[in-house]
Amino acid sequence: MARFHYECPLRWSDMDAFGHVNNSRFLTLYEEARVALFFNVAKKGGMSFEEGVVVARHEIDYKQVLDYVPTVRVEMWIGDIRNSSFDICYEMFNGDVLVSTAKTVAVLYDLAERRPRRVREDEREYLRTWQD
Amino acid sequence: MARFHYECPLRWSDMDAFGHVNNSRFLTLYEEARVALFFNVAKKGGMSFEEGVVVARHEIDYKQVLDYVPTVRVEMWIGDIRNSSFDICYEMFNGDVLVSTAKTVAVLYDLAERRPRRVREDEREYLRTWQD
Amino acid sequence: MARFHYECPLRWSDMDAFGHVNNSRFLTLYEEARVALFFNVAKKGGMSFEEGVVVARHEIDYKQVLDYVPTVRVEMWIGDIRNSSFDICYEMFNGDVLVSTAKTVAVLYDLAERRPRRVREDEREYLRTWQD
Amino acid sequence: MARFHYECPLRWSDMDAFGHVNNSRFLTLYEEARVALFFNVAKKGGMSFEEGVVVARHEIDYKQVLDYVPTVRVEMWIGDIRNSSFDICYEMFNGDVLVSTAKTVAVLYDLAERRPRRVREDEREYLRTWQD
Repeated sequence: MARFHYECPLRWSDMDAFGHVNNSRFLTLYEEARVALFFNVAKKGGMSFEEGVVVARHEIDYKQVLDYVPTVRVEMWIGDIRNSSFDICYEMFNGDVLVSTAKTVAVLYDLAERRPRRVREDEREYLRTWQD
Repeated sequence: MARFHYECPLRWSDMDAFGHVNNSRFLTLYEEARVALFFNVAKKGGMSFEEGVVVARHEIDYKQVLDYVPTVRVEMWIGDIRNSSFDICYEMFNGDVLVSTAKTVAVLYDLAERRPRRVREDEREYLRTWQD
Repeated sequence: MARFHYECPLRWSDMDAFGHVNNSRFLTLYEEARVALFFNVAKKGGMSFEEGVVVARHEIDYKQVLDYVPTVRVEMWIGDIRNSSFDICYEMFNGDVLVSTAKTVAVLYDLAERRPRRVREDEREYLRTWQD
Repeated sequence: MARFHYECPLRWSDMDAFGHVNNSRFLTLYEEARVALFFNVAKKGGMSFEEGVVVARHEIDYKQVLDYVPTVRVEMWIGDIRNSSFDICYEMFNGDVLVSTAKTVAVLYDLAERRPRRVREDEREYLRTWQD
């Protein structure tokens, strides 16, 4: 039971014409954290979430304007786990300052059958290790 | 009282490694529709929303995988109008198919005072013309 | 023998923190023109350049700062055609103003053999129709 | 006299639909290295290249397809220094493998007068410290 911490490097081009990190770009930063956990870390744990996990919904709240800094810290954990979907929760920090929170609803998908499928027991156990 | 229709051109680079339009990129497509209404159309109506409107929250629901097509149609309208904020609602269509819906909470901001400010009466009237 | 004209829509997010279209982004705009001709137009002419054409080199010259405008016009034509490669030449206009020129060296590739291959005679004829 | 080494983090979204790092995106990766030296490192050395340096030309050669890896190493140095412009040279490595080389022509600009200006002697000295 632990949060996943991801130090996410920003790019100069993440800024928009207002000179701040563009609000749309936040989803790409959260995506980087998600990729780090679900594609890379999970793989080392013998789990494969790279294919067959579909994003059904994102919610993002913006707390502070984010200036161009070298990195932000994304803290990520698993929320509710349902029959065929689960929640990914995020907080983004610039140093000690919370700049944004977000939630993704991820659905497990049977690619051959082209429909949602049940969360397997080993997947559920793995996801639980990242519950907060 | 009308929806704003925006024919949004896609780019080949909107696709990610899965060969579909990247889910994070949807926010940029919705941004294009928002810019078209709030920066360009509103200006012709004598209204200025370019500065002092801050995004506080986005919600996006994904209904269908979006393949690379020349354009998608974003239909946009104003939802609730509150004291110092209002909702922007969107539906994205690929032809007749609804691929995504979204909602943005926009806050009116006093840039000098660095705090939210009340929606002015002329702004409220303008926003109402785009309620559904 | 004709230039290919492509009206390329800009996005608000093409601007960087300096408030102009970002110089790195120009390659994406040129890519859009290239995709339009090589993936879409060529296909209608019975030609397939979608796979097996590899970019070996880009050159881009910047003539004018590009402000955020709705569209730019990319004029594109084929330059030299060699044994296994050819040049794609571009000019980008904002209205009547030339803002940038570019050249891409494209190599025809045998994907199975993983090495360059000769330009076929039907490909050479098609490419010639777009020489200036 | 030294090369500037920049370990440039890739993003999952740097891949395009072909599953490799998109060739247009390379300019953004080179931009990151340039920003690191000219905006951040130079500033610590008391030099300011953030404003008034304009990109006049880029050349990029692609040597190898670049798969999605955590980071690439960009080695960067100053080439020719002329009256009002200078060359920035780059090599990009994936481990030991050279994947791309590039060159940028940068022009020093008098923003008030809106025209190129001479390289100052202190600038020339600073730039020389990064010649190869």
